[in-house]
Parts: sequence; C-alpha cells; structure tokens
Amino acid sequence: MSHRIAILAGDGIGKEVMPEGVRALEAAAKRFGIELELEPFDFASCDYYLEHGQMLPDDWHATLSQFDAIFYGAIGWPDKVPDHISLWGSLLKFRREFDQYVNLRPCRLLPGIKSPLADREPGDIDFYVVRENTEGEYSSVGGTMFEGTDREVVIQETVMTRHGVDRVLKYAFDLAATRPRKKLTSATKSNGIAITMPWWDKRVAAMGQHYPDVNVDQFHIDILTANFVLHPDWFDVVVASNLFGDILSDLGPACTGTIGVAPSANINPEGTFPSLFEPVHGSAPDIAGKHIANPIGQIWSGAMMLEHLGYKEAADAIVAAFEAVLAEGDTRVLTPDLRGSGSTQALGQAIAERI
Amino acid sequence: MSHRIAILAGDGIGKEVMPEGVRALEAAAKRFGIELELEPFDFASCDYYLEHGQMLPDDWHATLSQFDAIFYGAIGWPDKVPDHISLWGSLLKFRREFDQYVNLRPCRLLPGIKSPLADREPGDIDFYVVRENTEGEYSSVGGTMFEGTDREVVIQETVMTRHGVDRVLKYAFDLAATRPRKKLTSATKSNGIAITMPWWDKRVAAMGQHYPDVNVDQFHIDILTANFVLHPDWFDVVVASNLFGDILSDLGPACTGTIGVAPSANINPEGTFPSLFEPVHGSAPDIAGKHIANPIGQIWSGAMMLEHLGYKEAADAIVAAFEAVLAEGDTRVLTPDLRGSGSTQALGQAIAERI
Ligand SMILES: CC(C)[C@H](C(=O)O)[C@@H](O)C(=O)O
Ligand SMILES: CC(C)[C@H](C(=O)O)[C@@H](O)C(=O)O
Repeated sequence: MSHRIAILAGDGIGKEVMPEGVRALEAAAKRFGIELELEPFDFASCDYYLEHGQMLPDDWHATLSQFDAIFYGAIGWPDKVPDHISLWGSLLKFRREFDQYVNLRPCRLLPGIKSPLADREPGDIDFYVVRENTEGEYSSVGGTMFEGTDREVVIQETVMTRHGVDRVLKYAFDLAATRPRKKLTSATKSNGIAITMPWWDKRVAAMGQHYPDVNVDQFHIDILTANFVLHPDWFDVVVASNLFGDILSDLGPACTGTIGVAPSANINPEGTFPSLFEPVHGSAPDIAGKHIANPIGQIWSGAMMLEHLGYKEAADAIVAAFEAVLAEGDTRVLTPDLRGSGSTQALGQAIAERI
Repeated sequence: MSHRIAILAGDGIGKEVMPEGVRALEAAAKRFGIELELEPFDFASCDYYLEHGQMLPDDWHATLSQFDAIFYGAIGWPDKVPDHISLWGSLLKFRREFDQYVNLRPCRLLPGIKSPLADREPGDIDFYVVRENTEGEYSSVGGTMFEGTDREVVIQETVMTRHGVDRVLKYAFDLAATRPRKKLTSATKSNGIAITMPWWDKRVAAMGQHYPDVNVDQFHIDILTANFVLHPDWFDVVVASNLFGDILSDLGPACTGTIGVAPSANINPEGTFPSLFEPVHGSAPDIAGKHIANPIGQIWSGAMMLEHLGYKEAADAIVAAFEAVLAEGDTRVLTPDLRGSGSTQALGQAIAERI
C-alpha cells in the first residue's frame, strides 16, 4: 500500500528545511520498505499569493483531500503579505476545514542540546502539549465600530463549544492514560477570563470523571508559564485552549534549548480528512536564505507523520537518528542555534545517513 | 502633609506578607520623615465574602476614594469562593472602577537570587512590563447558549478601544523614552488573533510616530515567551494587552528566580482615583499559614507606592535594603523560595532594620 503525501514547503526557511524533512522521510521509507508518493505544491505561500491574489487555489479542499497526510513547512512573509492574511488563508484554514482539532506537540530535552534552564538534563523535561486547534480564541467573529475615530472599538469573540472542547479533552486524557505518570495539567485562566474559562474548568472536571486513574491538576496560564521555567519536570500532558496551547508550545520547546527542533501534528483523529505535520517554528524571514535553519523540527514532524500512518518503527528510527547526531555534537554539522557552524543541509544529511 | 493609605491584606499569604510590607513602609516613613496614616480594612477577602455575601461593602467606592493609595496583599481562596467571583468582586473591580489603566511590573534579576536560567547575572535582566489593565481579554461581555446540552456554546468578547489602548501605549512609550536603551517591545498575536491584534499593531505604529527616538519591535506572544527564556537581555519596556501582560509579568519574574519578589503598581496616572500597589504573586493557599511566603514582593510594592507619592529617595532606600539583605545571603533569614530557611517575618525584619 502506497501513501500519498502532499508537500507544502511555504515561505522563508520552510523552503530550506523541507528538503531535509523529505530526505529523512525517503531514507526511512527505503529502510523500512514504506511506499510514499510525495507530491509538492507551490500554493500556501506568499509568492503564490502575490501571483494569484489568494493563498490557495479554489479547488484546494478537493485536491488535498485525496492525500493521506500533508507535510508542511512554514508560512508567512509579512513584508509581502500581512501575517493574518497568509495564515488565515492557509494553515488556519487547513486546521479548521480539515477538522484537525488536536494539535499535538511533544516537548523533550534532547541529548546534546543545552537547555537555557540551569541544571536541567535530558529526561528532566518530557511532556506533551495538547492544544485545541479549531476554535476558542482563534475566532473569525468580531469587528470594528467607529473605525478611524477616537471612539473606535474593536471586538473579537472567543467561541468555545462543548463539541470542540470535550473532544480535545478526551484526546488529552486518553494520551495521559497511556503514559507512565498518568498526569494531566489543564491550562486555565478562570480567575480573570471569567466566562469561557470557568466553563473550561468544568468540562475538564467532567471529563476527569471518566478517567479515575489520571491525576489532574490545573494552573492559571500566567503561573503555568512561570512553572514551565521553574518546574518543567512537573508536567506530563498539558491540555490547553487554542491560544494558551500556542503559547505553551513555543515556551516549552524554548525551555528545551531551541524551538528549531520542535515538531507538531495537526490531527484529525477520525481520519475523515488528512492530518498535517509541521515544525513549530515559523518561516523566520530574518534568517531565510542563510541556510542556517535547524531542520530537526521538520524531520521530527516527518517522524510523527510516519507514526500517524502506522509506521512506529520507522518513526522511532528517525528520532533515534537525530538524537544520535545531537549526542555526537559535531559542531561542523550542528546549526548555529545548536552552537554549531553547520548548514541546514549538513545537519539534514548527517541525520539521513544515520537513518 | 500626611498621606492616607488603605491597607487591604486579603487572603492566604496576603495576610502574612502585608505586616512585613507595613513594617518596611513605617521604617522608611520614620527615616525620611514621611507622614503616613495606614488604615486597615477587612473587606476584599474571601472571609468577608462568606460573612456578607459580597467581597466589598456597598460604599467601597466612596470609602476608598478618600485614600491617596491602596496597599494590597493577595486575594483568593478557591475552596471558599470561586476565583472569578472573589477577583471580579475586588481586585478587577478596583482596576476598572478606579481606572487604574496601567499595570506596571518591573522585572529585574536581583543580587543573591539564582535565576533558573543558566548563566544569567544581575544586570542581565532588567525590564518593565506595561500591561493594559482595564479592558481587552478581561471582559464581562459574553455568555452561554444551549447550556448543559451537547450543543453548548460559550462566548466571551475581547473588547479593545482606541481610548483604552492609546493611553497605555503612551505611558509605555513615555517610559521607554526615559530609559537609556529607549527600547519598546509590543506583544502581539496578529497572525492568529486576527481582528483585535492587527489593530493593536496599527495603534503601536501610530503612537511610535510621536516617539522617533524610541526603538520599537514586536513579537507574537508565543515566540515572545520563548524569547523571555532564551534572550531576556533583549527587553527594556514590553507593552502588552491585559491577558498578554498578565502572562508576561509572571513569566518575567520567574526568569529572575521567584515570583515572590515581584511587585506591581496599578496606576491611575491622572490621580483622579487612588492607585493600587500589590505583589504579583497570589494568595497561595497551598503555603498559607506556614509563614514561609517571601515578603519582598509586598515590600517592593510599598516602595513603588512611596515613589508614586513623590518619595523617590525613600523608595530607593527600601529597594537598597532588600538588595543588601539578598546580597548577604544569610540563609537563616531568606525564605525557602530563596533557598533559605527563614520565615516571612525574619526576612521582613531584616529588611526593615536595614532601612
Ligand atoms: C488574580 C488575577 C485575576 C490577576 C490577573 O489575572 O490580573 C493576577 O494574576 C494578576 O496578575 O494581578
Ligand atoms: C503562525 C501562527 C498562526 C500559528 C498559530 O498561532 O497557531 C503558529 O504560531 C503555530 O503555533 O502553529
């Protein structure tokens, strides 16, 4: 059985890390006899927008629906297209219209990477952020009144639904139940955001009833970010709304040394639509073209994709390969964010050879 | 001229750190010949709520309006009263109804305190968070439909106004203009929160026109939290919406070792209403009654209050006093969060003696 993968490299360093992601995928496919058909597209990029006036072709939904998964780089180039247009016209559209309601982001301190936190060793930080990925604070409801005047008022609505919240909570509890520590932390802000978040807390408590073995706690988002820095070892599975999950899944990887290595999976658990796999980092216009971007976030996202497609062994081999390269610590292949002098390609090649 | 200060200790460790805050104030008042009339109240606490069914007496506005400032501990005891009731019934009401639209939170790595970040020394971290304090994500507009059913929808509106945003931006730019580095960082999320935040960005750009000497940059809140950990030395003045400011002003102090020392000022710059000074930390029911809470957040808030009242020298003396005690590092007086074995009172006394 062959798997069709759509390749969307996007903008900026997306175009630089994607070839390395593909290289790792192909190496793993070869070693484990997996048939992958990789098909690249030029849409979902700011250059495409400049040419066509939209981020995606009209038939994008039908086109991409035929794929088993989407392998995605990074989108955005604010000097060409404002971020909210490029992102709402691509990534955020996919998440919503392909109902990828779980955004799963592992956060792990890897061998050979120096944490910015003092005295933290690999093993000390190892948790998942499970982020709601379709609703909440990322809403398209709202607008402006008295525009351009001193009376100007701008409103944006956070919209949470029981349908949307319960299903991602269920995913997070299920995940926590499979982990040795069986611990789930809910990110809340029910003391300040006093309409949606107290309700979120209630849904967490209700879902918890079905998981007597899972240990549940909760922190307000402000002190939770503080605890990521002070006590990253406290966390196992952290479940959060769309915005809070966005924040925690950049902060968590930063605590592990660099967001350049962090992967993510935008999952439609039912498989009705393709899931999408992308690094956590953005398109980083400031370093684009320099070939110094860390490709591990892209490569690790490829591993998550293979696992999602049923190839756990191949996924583990990719992870083992970049862990080995990191542990070796050859500064000629490590990228600058890892205190090396290597290029995106050098690091990608070293990992692919290892696979 | 005598200054009337309302003392509201609140709940939990608020009751333990407040006496130390008062001790430091009185020491400074004595040394610098400042006349302070301190008047304690029992309202704005969960015990008051349990007795009266409300957090504040009906005439709170008239009562507190007669004071020159409010010295505030910490409120909340979720086992007695849900947080959103206790906080919206007190602190958040003061901020809004006394139009304390600037929440100013210094974030500084102090001598003798070990940062959780590797290789950071005092001087490396020294910035202010200027938080909008009356509107934005902390809104009271919204509600629930189809309550208790599978179709349940919960909506909360973020409300930003030009009036509200411009004035806090102005405060932040003015502050940045007085600092040696003259740098202002705006916390945004205009790629995802695509109605309010692109507009926020525009207001920042418009205000920046009036401050050609101030260097402005902006980060999305997700990568901004990452940069607090990776590059805390980048920041000078950070301006943020209510929610983003809330998050950054817990995360920032965590990066300086403990949120136990962080102070804050809720300022009504026009002086129409009293301003309010409180530590950043909460009431911490988990350690309440143990007398191990760090009183420095409360004491430093008192220094900010004296500065606000015009006594810069007295404020500096308080800060110098706790810096000296911290630098000395006597573990018998330092509280456990500072790796000592001292009590709240021991640390408070050591600081007061120094003043
Ligand atoms: C207690 C809570 C409502 C408050 C806030 O969110 O503003 C606190 O976290 C703060 O930062 O002052
Ligand atoms: C690019 C941006 C819209 C996106 C988000 O906010 O979801 C990114 O930060 C992420 O975390 O995937």
